Amino acid sequence: MAQGPTITTIAARAGVSIASVSRVLNGLPTREDTVRKVMAAADELGYVPNAVARSLKSNRTHQVAFAMADIGNPTYVAMVREVQPVLKTAGYRLVLHSTGGDVDDEVDVLRRLGERYADGLIISPLRGITGKHLDLLTAAPAPTVVIGSIPEGTPVDNVRTDSRAGVRLALEHLYGLGRRSIGFLNGPLDTVPGAARDAAYADALDGLGLPYDPDLVEVGDFYRAEGAEAARRLLERSRPDAILCANDLIALGALDVLRAERLRVPEDVALVGMDDTELATAAWPTLTSVGLGSAERGRRAAELLLDRLDNGVAEPRIVTVEPTLAVRASTEGAA
Amino acid sequence: MAQGPTITTIAARAGVSIASVSRVLNGLPTREDTVRKVMAAADELGYVPNAVARSLKSNRTHQVAFAMADIGNPTYVAMVREVQPVLKTAGYRLVLHSTGGDVDDEVDVLRRLGERYADGLIISPLRGITGKHLDLLTAAPAPTVVIGSIPEGTPVDNVRTDSRAGVRLALEHLYGLGRRSIGFLNGPLDTVPGAARDAAYADALDGLGLPYDPDLVEVGDFYRAEGAEAARRLLERSRPDAILCANDLIALGALDVLRAERLRVPEDVALVGMDDTELATAAWPTLTSVGLGSAERGRRAAELLLDRLDNGVAEPRIVTVEPTLAVRASTEGAA
Repeated sequence: MAQGPTITTIAARAGVSIASVSRVLNGLPTREDTVRKVMAAADELGYVPNAVARSLKSNRTHQVAFAMADIGNPTYVAMVREVQPVLKTAGYRLVLHSTGGDVDDEVDVLRRLGERYADGLIISPLRGITGKHLDLLTAAPAPTVVIGSIPEGTPVDNVRTDSRAGVRLALEHLYGLGRRSIGFLNGPLDTVPGAARDAAYADALDGLGLPYDPDLVEVGDFYRAEGAEAARRLLERSRPDAILCANDLIALGALDVLRAERLRVPEDVALVGMDDTELATAAWPTLTSVGLGSAERGRRAAELLLDRLDNGVAEPRIVTVEPTLAVRASTEGAA
Repeated sequence: MAQGPTITTIAARAGVSIASVSRVLNGLPTREDTVRKVMAAADELGYVPNAVARSLKSNRTHQVAFAMADIGNPTYVAMVREVQPVLKTAGYRLVLHSTGGDVDDEVDVLRRLGERYADGLIISPLRGITGKHLDLLTAAPAPTVVIGSIPEGTPVDNVRTDSRAGVRLALEHLYGLGRRSIGFLNGPLDTVPGAARDAAYADALDGLGLPYDPDLVEVGDFYRAEGAEAARRLLERSRPDAILCANDLIALGALDVLRAERLRVPEDVALVGMDDTELATAAWPTLTSVGLGSAERGRRAAELLLDRLDNGVAEPRIVTVEPTLAVRASTEGAA
């Protein structure tokens, strides 16, 4: 890579000290003719202000980072679709990190905020806030918004959903259709959504006066193949008349298995997904699915961040987005 | 934002000149005891080397950027899934840009390479290489790999697919099934894939001795709703016995319309998508789809880039990934 102009070559060209160039690039008070000389020299040398020089100068990179677990998950895609236009309108470029839900990767993103590569960060930690996250969040060198659950008192802006209410919507819908044996296919219990949905399922059954039957619950992972395996294990030992799945990918896997077993959806088994992604309407029968407001969570997170960047708000804020239920053919039959 | 230690405060603490601090941070030859003093002062002041200071020091940011049109398109997701592990293993962090296929946004990403925020770039320009791209690519300040078509002689590494061969595979398959009236739902002709697929469709018909009938061709956009509208317009004026769609989203839209029109797939109309995304297997009937090697294109692009970063290869290279046809229920009936 060719060595471009540096603070040293600019100083030589301008006939001023390196300290003067540094002052000008740092935007510190400097004699006007010095500023002019430095700028002219920088110009002549084809100096491209680099990210940090600009950030030192304006204290802004005009870039915002969004770190999510998996760019292939439509939930995050829905968030990005809302975050990006909000930021773009305000003059910020969005850069994305797909962390695979790896805590070390997430922590690395937080740590790098200290290098001022972005003015702010939106982060959605899959496995929740660990001690490592917390230390960095508490001393975050740039405004940060967390999408997802955070421990009480964490000093950052937070946008969360109420998955408990979402699971309740689904179970009340199935109950209303006369279903009483409602299975549950979940993702790993050591993830934030897995743990929350497990508790919510038990709660919602309780609210409906239905017993919790461990034989009706199976834990796999948030993907289609793992969802299919979990559905197979569930159907080997029980025959529910409805199944709630912890996301739409799991529901697609369950649909594959129900079809292979020649069980009719919804006549024999009603099926509900979660996240209400585009997969829900791609499937046939189309999937009833609990929407957890991904798009709205993205939009609200972007707004909170912008507000903090522009106005330097003091108190951390919490926004809760309400869930919705999109009723489709997998519970109510063909439209 | 709290003002962290700067070149000035480090110089004061170390009792050396600002020029000396600059030399040390730039990795230029400096007296050993000066280096020691500067490093000790930086340490005491809690100085976090910022992205550019590190890049000036090591000439590396250990970051690679990947700019694509739309993070919600499963084709790009398939690429990211391959690019990321290859780069991660080599010690590079991946940052993503979703440009919306906007030429200005793409050009902005290329221009920013001059600010050394990333060591290299993989870019997939939706509307091809414009003059603006070309100027920046020719003088690219960091290794760049383009996924997609580029003009002959563009001095960058290039990974492309053979969509012409892919369209031919699809049409030969449909011809083999006895279909002779094969419609085509395409995306915009001012996009690289749209233009290439349009030419390929005409060519493949010619190869099979079938006439090109403009009534069988409809142009919409690469999304489901637009695909459905295009299918509706096509079916209003003709009744093909097969339809090729320029991507899987268009095919999903066509499937919606065929279902509404009570046309059976594949008995009345055989349907083929392109890109072979996870939507193809989410659909019912599952979609026969032309795979254009997205995953392999991503992997090859990452390998080309790493090779150039590590070994500084001289000559630009072109890699062509061969297409495949995944035959499913939408052409051959239920499995």
